[in-house]
Amino acid sequence: MATLLKGPEVTAALNAKLVKQTAELKAGGVYPTMAMVRVGEREEDISYERGAVKRCQHIGAAIRQYVLPLDATQESILAVIQNLNADPTVHGVLIFRPLPPHMDDAVVRNALHPSKDLDGISNASLSYVFSGISTGFPPCTAQACLEIIDYYGIGLKGRKVAVIGRSLVVGKPVSMMLLDRDATVTICHRNTANLPEICRAADVLIVAAGQAGIVDQSFLSPGQTVIDVGIHPDASGKISGDVLFDQAEPVVGAITPVPGGVGAVTTTVLIKHLVEAARRNLK
Amino acid sequence: MATLLKGPEVTAALNAKLVKQTAELKAGGVYPTMAMVRVGEREEDISYERGAVKRCQHIGAAIRQYVLPLDATQESILAVIQNLNADPTVHGVLIFRPLPPHMDDAVVRNALHPSKDLDGISNASLSYVFSGISTGFPPCTAQACLEIIDYYGIGLKGRKVAVIGRSLVVGKPVSMMLLDRDATVTICHRNTANLPEICRAADVLIVAAGQAGIVDQSFLSPGQTVIDVGIHPDASGKISGDVLFDQAEPVVGAITPVPGGVGAVTTTVLIKHLVEAARRNLK
Repeated sequence: MATLLKGPEVTAALNAKLVKQTAELKAGGVYPTMAMVRVGEREEDISYERGAVKRCQHIGAAIRQYVLPLDATQESILAVIQNLNADPTVHGVLIFRPLPPHMDDAVVRNALHPSKDLDGISNASLSYVFSGISTGFPPCTAQACLEIIDYYGIGLKGRKVAVIGRSLVVGKPVSMMLLDRDATVTICHRNTANLPEICRAADVLIVAAGQAGIVDQSFLSPGQTVIDVGIHPDASGKISGDVLFDQAEPVVGAITPVPGGVGAVTTTVLIKHLVEAARRNLK
Repeated sequence: MATLLKGPEVTAALNAKLVKQTAELKAGGVYPTMAMVRVGEREEDISYERGAVKRCQHIGAAIRQYVLPLDATQESILAVIQNLNADPTVHGVLIFRPLPPHMDDAVVRNALHPSKDLDGISNASLSYVFSGISTGFPPCTAQACLEIIDYYGIGLKGRKVAVIGRSLVVGKPVSMMLLDRDATVTICHRNTANLPEICRAADVLIVAAGQAGIVDQSFLSPGQTVIDVGIHPDASGKISGDVLFDQAEPVVGAITPVPGGVGAVTTTVLIKHLVEAARRNLK
């Protein structure tokens, strides 16, 4: 029987702190304000927006929404970003991606000033993660893994961590963040030979493979901590992760459920980054 | 009896290609030109400069030296860099570091345009390495490890590589470059538990610990490839590496000697990057 690493518990603890910090900011004359930039009307973006608005309201922060039509020019989104960069009343920006194909993702991402780049999408933000510099913000999903690990007091220093996945959104940044925390990190991927064996030997396993149920019992060993980043809805809308939870739960020491694990923490991390950006503004 | 992975052999093969490419460039009206920016008169910088000048002459490229007094202002070095960024007849720049303490290393590094950043020191260059984008140039020492591995036809795809060291000059960038080549990479450091065991299990071991003789027989297993990045002169001036060569050589499959291994390749990689930068100019 594994300990369940519950996202909502982590979120609740984070929120309590964010409510307090937001109140302090307002007392200091700073109203933490996030801008969300969306192109088009993609359903999942709108649903994410709704969730973020609710969470911002809950802690007392503000959101401004910038919506561009699907045929907006690249110049027009760049103009929006440049205005937000220059606007001292906006502390952080989230840009929904993927962008429509007529926009150059790298140009748009890198137009965002790293001090306002709440989801760590610009090259500058990524270079900070790579360099272990805390000037910018790491991608929220990567940070969410660390928040869960820290909330539950899971040690990292000198311990073996295996990461499955090497994306710029989770695998690579979380590997660098774990390395900065003195873990010994093995980065695995589709070409890794003996993947189950490598995973079994890890004290902590971060699964960001993006493939439903890829981790079965053969990957797992007693006492391990398993962080499952996958979010896969099936035909009926039921959500599962990269890990076969029913096989993992009897074996490992601790595991994030899906849903109710990493995914539940990611948006709160976004708002944590917003509050942090606003606090830098206060000083 | 291990195969010796000889730096000078790798360098000779690279040089042959570079001589040819430089001739092509000149035929196309482009004269590959590197600028070296040095502050003060540190002996090892001057000696490195001499070596680079000789190698540039050998392949037919040009070097311009910019030397500032030790008490030069940060503004003055930034002015030099900005001129070099803007000068279309200069294809690449090397800045000697560490800079004197009154200069802000990050500001100076990041002033250099990534297209001319031959040793991958700017945040933009590092973000490219992290992202697996070949727009910029990786740090020369990290690339030198890959050049040796490729010259000797050592496979990486799906193989286990252990890297000792997590610096921005070698450990982290070489890890990302190996990952891009589909190796399974474990990044180790001073806090790694069971370091010898992890190293023994690797097919390829990259040692960039910066500590003379830290790798003894207990870290090694038959058939391994060992790349030793360490360069440590003893009191008498004799140079040795991070690996105890006499213990390693009878055990492993292949190993870089020190001297005559990675160190011998690094300057040639610098010039390779110069020629590459000039070739981009040609297109």
